[in-house]
Amino acid sequence: MEYTTQTTTDGEFDDVVDATIAALNDEGFGVLCDIDIQATLEEKLGEEFRQYRILGACNPSLAYEGLNEEIELGALLPCNVIVYERDDGAVVVSAVDPGQLIGITDNDALDSIATEVSERFDRVLTAVTDEFDPASEA
Amino acid sequence: MEYTTQTTTDGEFDDVVDATIAALNDEGFGVLCDIDIQATLEEKLGEEFRQYRILGACNPSLAYEGLNEEIELGALLPCNVIVYERDDGAVVVSAVDPGQLIGITDNDALDSIATEVSERFDRVLTAVTDEFDPASEA
Repeated sequence: MEYTTQTTTDGEFDDVVDATIAALNDEGFGVLCDIDIQATLEEKLGEEFRQYRILGACNPSLAYEGLNEEIELGALLPCNVIVYERDDGAVVVSAVDPGQLIGITDNDALDSIATEVSERFDRVLTAVTDEFDPASEA
Repeated sequence: MEYTTQTTTDGEFDDVVDATIAALNDEGFGVLCDIDIQATLEEKLGEEFRQYRILGACNPSLAYEGLNEEIELGALLPCNVIVYERDDGAVVVSAVDPGQLIGITDNDALDSIATEVSERFDRVLTAVTDEFDPASEA
């Protein structure tokens, strides 16, 4: 089963990252965590890696609601949107499926929150898709 | 099913956070992401919340191995260790179960990595437990 929802564009990597962060902000998500995997692997291991960013997105109201329902939920937060280069140079934006991530808790009271995050992530991916030319299929 | 492994101590919150970060470092994890939930909810929503930190832990070698096996894995990284106050003031340190988190991928090739992270997290929790008095049961 897929655990992410994706879009792929022909935009420049940094432009796509910026557009993704802007679209997340428009949907009420702050980026609380921004990990540059390429830089981290270069620094820590001396390994070359494709451009790859992990954006940890958090909607404070939904997080507050979720944490009040389940105190351990933070072990699964924030919900990530990743941006990375495909081998052909196209740029993939991929959002984790909150239903599957939060589904680990097996707490039905969190279902509506997961659905809300999922709908917002869908709109984020649509916004990014609309801003760039679609990439040709790999 | 539980999706975290926990220990609970009577240490001061900030001391427990520091000990957790030190123990993670000793096991080869960098903390790539450190989210202060209490401060975030206060700033964004004006809501009071217990002290609560999300530490996103990443072992570069294991992450590199995992990402080469499965490019989308970053949607689930880093693996979190959370530290929060319980209602009675005891401090809980809780590590996500990497088996369940990475299990979302349904990729058997990642099982050995999840097991390795899990064993290291167990040692982190033991190290933190040994450094403080255990908390009485809630």
